[in-house]
Amino acid sequence: MSLTVVGSMAFDEIETPFAKSGRIIGGSANYIAWAASNFVQPINQVSVIGEDFPSSELEALKAKGVVLDGVQVKQGEKSFYWSGKYHMDMNTRDSLATELNVLGDFQPVIPDSYQGSEFLILGNLTPQVQMSVIDQFKVRPKLIVMDTMNFWMDVALDDLLKVLKRVDVLMVNDGEARQLSGEYSLVKAARKIMSMGPRYLIIKKGEHGALLFYENHVFFAPAMPLDDVYDPTGAGDTFAGGFIGHLAKTKDISFENMKTAIIVGSAMASFCVEKFGTERIREVTHEEIAARLEQFVQLVNFDIDLV
Amino acid sequence: MSLTVVGSMAFDEIETPFAKSGRIIGGSANYIAWAASNFVQPINQVSVIGEDFPSSELEALKAKGVVLDGVQVKQGEKSFYWSGKYHMDMNTRDSLATELNVLGDFQPVIPDSYQGSEFLILGNLTPQVQMSVIDQFKVRPKLIVMDTMNFWMDVALDDLLKVLKRVDVLMVNDGEARQLSGEYSLVKAARKIMSMGPRYLIIKKGEHGALLFYENHVFFAPAMPLDDVYDPTGAGDTFAGGFIGHLAKTKDISFENMKTAIIVGSAMASFCVEKFGTERIREVTHEEIAARLEQFVQLVNFDIDLV
Repeated sequence: MSLTVVGSMAFDEIETPFAKSGRIIGGSANYIAWAASNFVQPINQVSVIGEDFPSSELEALKAKGVVLDGVQVKQGEKSFYWSGKYHMDMNTRDSLATELNVLGDFQPVIPDSYQGSEFLILGNLTPQVQMSVIDQFKVRPKLIVMDTMNFWMDVALDDLLKVLKRVDVLMVNDGEARQLSGEYSLVKAARKIMSMGPRYLIIKKGEHGALLFYENHVFFAPAMPLDDVYDPTGAGDTFAGGFIGHLAKTKDISFENMKTAIIVGSAMASFCVEKFGTERIREVTHEEIAARLEQFVQLVNFDIDLV
Repeated sequence: MSLTVVGSMAFDEIETPFAKSGRIIGGSANYIAWAASNFVQPINQVSVIGEDFPSSELEALKAKGVVLDGVQVKQGEKSFYWSGKYHMDMNTRDSLATELNVLGDFQPVIPDSYQGSEFLILGNLTPQVQMSVIDQFKVRPKLIVMDTMNFWMDVALDDLLKVLKRVDVLMVNDGEARQLSGEYSLVKAARKIMSMGPRYLIIKKGEHGALLFYENHVFFAPAMPLDDVYDPTGAGDTFAGGFIGHLAKTKDISFENMKTAIIVGSAMASFCVEKFGTERIREVTHEEIAARLEQFVQLVNFDIDLV
């Protein structure tokens, strides 16, 4: 029992300038699990759903090695629902509706069978829920990775700062890093955030790639330049899933291996945006992943001997 | 006589949210020459200045191996002058004043001593001037690199398209690539622009790095994450100078070597932004350049064997 994933399992409805998704499966824990399951199984899922969540989706996850013992099913209630509309740049979006439903009073319970997980990833949820999960592990996982968002910085900063002291790796986007640190320079922001607890910081910059900070080191993973971005929803969670999946597979949490892991995350994210929701990452093959990773090598490899 | 540089030699006056430069030396040809002279000498400069241009600056350039036979001095006239003010993000700026002066009716003349140049870089100037320079070479240089800007797309697109057919490498920023191609996706934009003439396309994304396109290949060079950007003026020209300087030094115009060249360009640009104008790149040492290049290797190198 190696990897535990905590996050939402939800319905999304997405509108881009080019298409509408209708009601589809979303949620941070789903994206993370679909991505990570290409590298490591089983995956211990912790989440909450309503009675409206399709059993076919649960079966599909199980078939990918996702264990659902930690997923609470609330009879008579509805799953979390989000709808949003992307602007022409496909980078910015407006939320049209956010219905917390079962997520509103979510109290996660870690099943005994999940105890001993070496890797734990806390998808974007209230800091209080994230803290509760950490507290329930009798032995601290070898590596705890945490995602969060600006909303929690606005409404639950004190709780967020407490969780930060308990995790190894924090993932935020550039705007969130600036908000959390009060620094515009991402290098300065990273230094400040690492002083708040996490030894490693990943700053996601969407189509501009991601930075990994550790002590005085910095590593940069580009995003793959693509002909088109069809739907960016879930790309950050998919990135997180590829990252933790590679680490859990290799059981190596060195800085060097984290570099490889964020390249793997970037590769998985580059698939995610090719179709709506989880559509692309649930069908991606090992051969396609290997080919995409080779493209990343080509994208950044250079020979500096001549200089 | 290996490298010819064409561009402006000018006065700039720069205001950032943190400081004012006063009247300092600027101009695309100056930035390119200062950067490139670290890699190759002599450099054949082609430009025009007024009688107000300081002789001390000309002496400093000569000391770095910059030949000024192709620099016209217009007695009784003033040098090109630009002043601008950066916004808080240090990425966007307003032009406060643009006085063309001697640049208004610049007719470049290539001295006989410059004939036989293997490398030619056309800094940002009117397409007509750029074309005139190409026409004056009796033997076409082995590699012609061209910079341009959105202004010429607005006012001289026909001339610009004619020059594009004559060059090997075009450098533009992301907004200019989108304007020139009418495509939002940079991958699609690159394909379209390469069909207009240049075999290689470099798209500069400022703090987000640069992309090099060639046939179906793409290479990405990140910008070095810095604590602070003091003044971004001239960073693009300095990048161009490092790029062409490395190519002219190694005399290797393969795609593989161009990858190294844009890393060298990124390294030089990372110095440029550390101080006002050309201040930092005129004092940078070979040891500092070598150390910065090693930082770039650390920034992007990863091991994918484990996957």
